Amino acid sequence: MRIQPLRIAISSARKFINMGALSRLLNLVKNFHAAEISSLMDHLTFREKRILFNVLLDKNKEKTGEVLSELDPEDASLILKELPLEQITDLFQITPPDDVASILDLLPEDMKESVLGAMEEKPSEDVKELLHYEEETAGRIMSPDFYALDQETNVSDSITAMQLEGDVESAFYLYVVDEKNHLTGVVSLRQVLFSPPNTPLKEIMNKDLISVHPETDQEEVARYVADYNLVAIPVVDSENTLVGVVTVDDVIDVIEEEATEDIYKMLSLDTTDRIQNNPLKSIKKRLPFLLFSLITASLAPFVIHYFEDTIKSFITLAVFMPLVAALGGIAGNQTIAIIVREIAIGQADWVGAKKALIKEILVGFGNGVILGAILSGVSYLLIKNPYLGLILGLSIIANLFIAALLGTLIPLFLKLIRLDPALGSVNLLTMCTDTIGFLTFLGLGTLFLSKLI
Amino acid sequence: MRIQPLRIAISSARKFINMGALSRLLNLVKNFHAAEISSLMDHLTFREKRILFNVLLDKNKEKTGEVLSELDPEDASLILKELPLEQITDLFQITPPDDVASILDLLPEDMKESVLGAMEEKPSEDVKELLHYEEETAGRIMSPDFYALDQETNVSDSITAMQLEGDVESAFYLYVVDEKNHLTGVVSLRQVLFSPPNTPLKEIMNKDLISVHPETDQEEVARYVADYNLVAIPVVDSENTLVGVVTVDDVIDVIEEEATEDIYKMLSLDTTDRIQNNPLKSIKKRLPFLLFSLITASLAPFVIHYFEDTIKSFITLAVFMPLVAALGGIAGNQTIAIIVREIAIGQADWVGAKKALIKEILVGFGNGVILGAILSGVSYLLIKNPYLGLILGLSIIANLFIAALLGTLIPLFLKLIRLDPALGSVNLLTMCTDTIGFLTFLGLGTLFLSKLI
Repeated sequence: MRIQPLRIAISSARKFINMGALSRLLNLVKNFHAAEISSLMDHLTFREKRILFNVLLDKNKEKTGEVLSELDPEDASLILKELPLEQITDLFQITPPDDVASILDLLPEDMKESVLGAMEEKPSEDVKELLHYEEETAGRIMSPDFYALDQETNVSDSITAMQLEGDVESAFYLYVVDEKNHLTGVVSLRQVLFSPPNTPLKEIMNKDLISVHPETDQEEVARYVADYNLVAIPVVDSENTLVGVVTVDDVIDVIEEEATEDIYKMLSLDTTDRIQNNPLKSIKKRLPFLLFSLITASLAPFVIHYFEDTIKSFITLAVFMPLVAALGGIAGNQTIAIIVREIAIGQADWVGAKKALIKEILVGFGNGVILGAILSGVSYLLIKNPYLGLILGLSIIANLFIAALLGTLIPLFLKLIRLDPALGSVNLLTMCTDTIGFLTFLGLGTLFLSKLI
Repeated sequence: MRIQPLRIAISSARKFINMGALSRLLNLVKNFHAAEISSLMDHLTFREKRILFNVLLDKNKEKTGEVLSELDPEDASLILKELPLEQITDLFQITPPDDVASILDLLPEDMKESVLGAMEEKPSEDVKELLHYEEETAGRIMSPDFYALDQETNVSDSITAMQLEGDVESAFYLYVVDEKNHLTGVVSLRQVLFSPPNTPLKEIMNKDLISVHPETDQEEVARYVADYNLVAIPVVDSENTLVGVVTVDDVIDVIEEEATEDIYKMLSLDTTDRIQNNPLKSIKKRLPFLLFSLITASLAPFVIHYFEDTIKSFITLAVFMPLVAALGGIAGNQTIAIIVREIAIGQADWVGAKKALIKEILVGFGNGVILGAILSGVSYLLIKNPYLGLILGLSIIANLFIAALLGTLIPLFLKLIRLDPALGSVNLLTMCTDTIGFLTFLGLGTLFLSKLI
């Protein structure tokens, strides 16, 4: 749906909901794809979302199931929570197990139990299986439905077997197993189509295949799919038995999620903070980061306090003080951005740390010299005090050097101690560049005070 | 390749290259997937990259072609530049046209011409076609190879036709066209496999298909593929004639690129700045942003300069001054992160701007009151001056309010004037929160000066 129609759809949907014109609302979304209805719902208030969802559920259960797997799991859980058990169970039976698992995980424990109990055995077992694995692992996002056949099966029998199995959502590959049910290869459906009917699968299969374990972190799974240009990746247990398949659409969600996480964590934001959250919820989510900032930002005042007498003797120092800190912060942010992102796409780690560090320090030093020289010159023209120019220039060089050093080390260190390399990194860096910036600038100011006044 | 083996591969490759043990180098990478060789090369210096590439080219041209499409186009162009024309042409003939186009675009104009002239007609035409379209559009990343058949063709003839056409890289769909060659539907290869041989394609095709134009921005293409869970999206011209297909592997690259761009632009970094660039190149790329920061950061000193007398009379103001600015900056960054990211995933625009603005302002005000109260209290305990506590608290509230207001408006405004919403946004915001923070705090300080001293 292009942006223009989406805007119209949003305002029409709102109007119909508020007028209580539910059949017109249904008419509006009748030809929408599930993804479009989900996009539309993202722009509605919770009350409006619930009304649209329930209207749809009354008329077209199947489409509602599709919408359910597209919705944000948190929204979905809030809407479902208010439905009778039977309706939830009905919907879950037609929703892919991995989506059911993420929604179910957000429902109250007793509700979760009763829903799982009320579902038919097969889907219920599938969901329970997925729930065994930790969040953000391959096990959580894999689909337990796939085509897998014995390697001795020939092409013609394979086609019949897959037909009997029925349509498997987004299946583009047929997995091949040996007599012990161990994964031995993969055949694309294109190969099946093009091969003579009596060829055994083992003769056309690709044995050089990449698989992951259910415990593998979803970010690593995404890395493999992205690097090897895959459309699906098989998940095998420790015995090499195929237990599921992660498809590329789930991988795209992971990649977008992780990119958002990088930005959010770098800029001190909770990863579940959303524009649609109500203000109280967002206040609660942001407050811990701000309190942490209050502590990190409280270091600088102590430094300044120590130099009160110097500042009092030459007040111009107070004027330029924040400039030194700001430039250090911005240069350090540049380094952090590059290091965090290169870690995320698998390009940076401790192996390459030394190289990256030397490079960043050279860049910081180089830019420090250029900015320092400019600022020295300009301040001399304005204030006519060569010593002020000198200490400004030197402080900028020192602070950009420190910014490069810490901008590289903070994310790499966070990664080393198994925290997210982005987590609060900009905040931590600002604390350092502020403190060290003030320290250098005011320290040099004290040293040269007799020349300044 | 897991991280451990990659580390070993890097150090072994380096050792073999420096020893000149080229056959051992070849042996090392012999069983590596092209993506693995490309990952390995990302960790080598340019000289080492070139040596590995040339060794590989000597022994296994086909694999070298695969590596070429995985490599960063800039690296690839630098390596190719030094090869004889014939070898470049040979390699380009076996590399997908979209990858050739991105590499070719980075070669000198005369070299580009001669390579295109020396290539065989079909691949050369394909590449020229792609080069017609602007960078970052569907036309640039689409593949001109796909299966397309007339809607009257039956399933059995379709299979024969596709077999004659040969293997098309990552083709999972068969596109269906009418007698005028207009795209009318799509059939998955799974459906082809499961349908009776004499069914015409038009009876099994899915008519409800999503397509894009060659001029469509690659980010919009990625949005469709992500939202509709597609594996490929057809590209049609203004007459609805199929001209190419964008596959999901290219979409993943776009999504990762755009996420990196968001982070980089937000934190004032050039999008082509890489950890492997040499320091001089990175200095050049970062300097414009830093010079811009020098200008934006120079606003605050003027404000402080204006209040010099106040600060001199009550020097404690200089001590707390940076704290007010820092907290405003951090809270504003939180807002910017959320707005930029929601714009990127298509959740925020001017339509929802009012709602987002009100929400962010409430959050900013709420957190301002809490942080302001804490800081008032703490400063009172430390300094025993109720008026200092009061103006600290009020300044924090004011600055967090402003941070929320501008943190929402800056990215939305940048988008409105068709700039990237992330571009330098953190920098612009810091300028505002610094300036306004100092202005409020020192202004209130001047107002209450008689009570402070």
